[in-house]
Amino acid sequence: MDSAYSRAREAVRSNAPLIQCLTNSVVMDVTANVLLAAGASPAMCDTPEEAGAFAQVAQGVLINAGTPSQESYAGMRAAIAGANSAGTPWVLDPVGAGALAYRTEFMLSILGEKPAAIRGNASEIIALSRAGAGGRGVDSTDGVDAALPAALALARRTGAVVAVSGERDLIVRVQGGSERAVYLHSGDPMLQLVIGTGCSLGALVAAYLAAWQDPFEAVLAAHAHMGAAGQVAASTCHAPGSFAVAWIDALYELDGQAIASSGRIEEIAQV
Amino acid sequence: MDSAYSRAREAVRSNAPLIQCLTNSVVMDVTANVLLAAGASPAMCDTPEEAGAFAQVAQGVLINAGTPSQESYAGMRAAIAGANSAGTPWVLDPVGAGALAYRTEFMLSILGEKPAAIRGNASEIIALSRAGAGGRGVDSTDGVDAALPAALALARRTGAVVAVSGERDLIVRVQGGSERAVYLHSGDPMLQLVIGTGCSLGALVAAYLAAWQDPFEAVLAAHAHMGAAGQVAASTCHAPGSFAVAWIDALYELDGQAIASSGRIEEIAQV
Amino acid sequence: MDSAYSRAREAVRSNAPLIQCLTNSVVMDVTANVLLAAGASPAMCDTPEEAGAFAQVAQGVLINAGTPSQESYAGMRAAIAGANSAGTPWVLDPVGAGALAYRTEFMLSILGEKPAAIRGNASEIIALSRAGAGGRGVDSTDGVDAALPAALALARRTGAVVAVSGERDLIVRVQGGSERAVYLHSGDPMLQLVIGTGCSLGALVAAYLAAWQDPFEAVLAAHAHMGAAGQVAASTCHAPGSFAVAWIDALYELDGQAIASSGRIEEIAQV
Repeated sequence: MDSAYSRAREAVRSNAPLIQCLTNSVVMDVTANVLLAAGASPAMCDTPEEAGAFAQVAQGVLINAGTPSQESYAGMRAAIAGANSAGTPWVLDPVGAGALAYRTEFMLSILGEKPAAIRGNASEIIALSRAGAGGRGVDSTDGVDAALPAALALARRTGAVVAVSGERDLIVRVQGGSERAVYLHSGDPMLQLVIGTGCSLGALVAAYLAAWQDPFEAVLAAHAHMGAAGQVAASTCHAPGSFAVAWIDALYELDGQAIASSGRIEEIAQV
Repeated sequence: MDSAYSRAREAVRSNAPLIQCLTNSVVMDVTANVLLAAGASPAMCDTPEEAGAFAQVAQGVLINAGTPSQESYAGMRAAIAGANSAGTPWVLDPVGAGALAYRTEFMLSILGEKPAAIRGNASEIIALSRAGAGGRGVDSTDGVDAALPAALALARRTGAVVAVSGERDLIVRVQGGSERAVYLHSGDPMLQLVIGTGCSLGALVAAYLAAWQDPFEAVLAAHAHMGAAGQVAASTCHAPGSFAVAWIDALYELDGQAIASSGRIEEIAQV
Repeated sequence: MDSAYSRAREAVRSNAPLIQCLTNSVVMDVTANVLLAAGASPAMCDTPEEAGAFAQVAQGVLINAGTPSQESYAGMRAAIAGANSAGTPWVLDPVGAGALAYRTEFMLSILGEKPAAIRGNASEIIALSRAGAGGRGVDSTDGVDAALPAALALARRTGAVVAVSGERDLIVRVQGGSERAVYLHSGDPMLQLVIGTGCSLGALVAAYLAAWQDPFEAVLAAHAHMGAAGQVAASTCHAPGSFAVAWIDALYELDGQAIASSGRIEEIAQV
């Protein structure tokens, strides 16, 4: 990877962006620790009474729709409005899109609110894209490759950089007439055995968007950072308890140079 | 332990059952990590809007009544209804039964809804059994032995396998005219110094019930798996931070053979 | 430090006080693990229906105002009323005071309810003190030294021992006509890279207040315990994942003697 991704990582460390996370209660702890390890500053300010005002002082906002309640949805709407009025980038993590009707409806209702990035797994991205087009939920066995058309359609419709996590990550952008799509080869399967690695990647994307000008590079660099940390941890730990500890350590210790040399980017020609 | 328990552990790993957890917010993270380490797939889908539909696609459901709110109780009722309509086994963890009137009433109100298993400590099981009989709360110092009559009464009334966690675990079943009760000697006291080990055992019970036909064997095997992991961790770690890491590692690494050779089962003759 | 702090630590271990925590959902897991490691018994009983009755049997209560919801505020009011009716000491952790108007109003509304201790960072203590005097929020860059007048004013107004966490900790008390203020030199900057170290310190303060007669000594001893554990962990771990594990281990292993010899107390003469 070129030096932009390397410098993006250093920007997160030196800017220490304040990232507001409206996320599900399962992963709040690990999400906050991931942001702290990377050099960002987490704040889980998510109630309807406070989320809107806080989004105007935060540098980035994460909207993760897992374990939704009426109150948290109200908080999310307030945070998005606050973020947009202040020009704060916000990230949508569509956890469970397609599989669950109630939250899918909510996600569709905020899709037009200019997310800077959308990050999910293949099934979620496909479901979100189809749902908007009147389609139905999909099987959770979809691979990353199968999500390419959906990711591009979603990127075109929302203006967001769209990222699909999987055995390799897919990241796409549609800007004006030009499209770009890449696969990022990095990470380790052990990441899926620790709860919150995907959800905290969404928060890390918000931190990179806050610290780095170019959204495509920011999203890609966040994924490269997460993947490289997984590779470092997997090189010494072969069970999920010790892996999780080593992964947080690696998120903290990895500098831009090490991240850049760890992942491999493959441009997708046919786009 | 015989090979049934050993094969039950492999069934969890190969079936990777989807386990829906409606549990208290203190232990969501550790519960999810325990299920992932054991080879199951956790989903903390717990709102009234989504819990019922999700329970129809889940393979097992955990109902843990700690930190109860109006909204979570509504979600639990929906999940139980969904589970029963789809024939999904569900597990009741009666956290704080007896000590707290509000939640005890809730537990009594769902006791007739055919839980496949009930898992708690001695005081909780005694309280739940007495409360249903018009009795009152009990002292939290009750030992596992003292809970045998209450466990049997509860098993008779509900049809559930009833498990009592303690210095040794008690597991009982009443089926038609026949009763069975065993003590399982396994585990380590250090487990009590890590939050969520009991609550996540409830989730593990749900995973075993989802993957293994015989409910008594499933509940016993889940306890044996948890206990063996505690023993492995305690053999190298003597403080709770490092113990918790080693315990998750052991939950992941232990195969059926190692679990079967680790615990000792004592049939209770007088039942 | 003298032997009082050393004996206070042993009192927590031998009394195993039951500490009720009404705290934000980000830090529930780590807070419970800190209490368990120190030898206390955590219970996150926080709903309006149960919090009041439980505060009458708990030995100490923590009120942490992070991620506030209507329901949790109602639970906090019930817990405070229950604690005061039973003479149970309660601790206020004013997370985000000043920066967020909604929660600051709530904190002001309970400030007259006789907290035994108030623990926050410099900005929070200054904000809480000024807000009560009609002032406004402050910059989060305030140092501990700058908080001395605010801490004394708050201590005078509420009767609480007031503690300010930072590069060194400040602890003040105003009792009748006499004031005491000390700096505690202990801890390690790595503590700030693990979520919940500050919030769980509030819970530890409640445990020490429950186990030790003199409130000033109790608050100081809790801070010394936390700081010493940070120093022990930092001596071998240089990244936050492994540091967090070693820190919990140290909280468990440290005895009173080791804690007493670890920190340095500086009396503030000019008070």
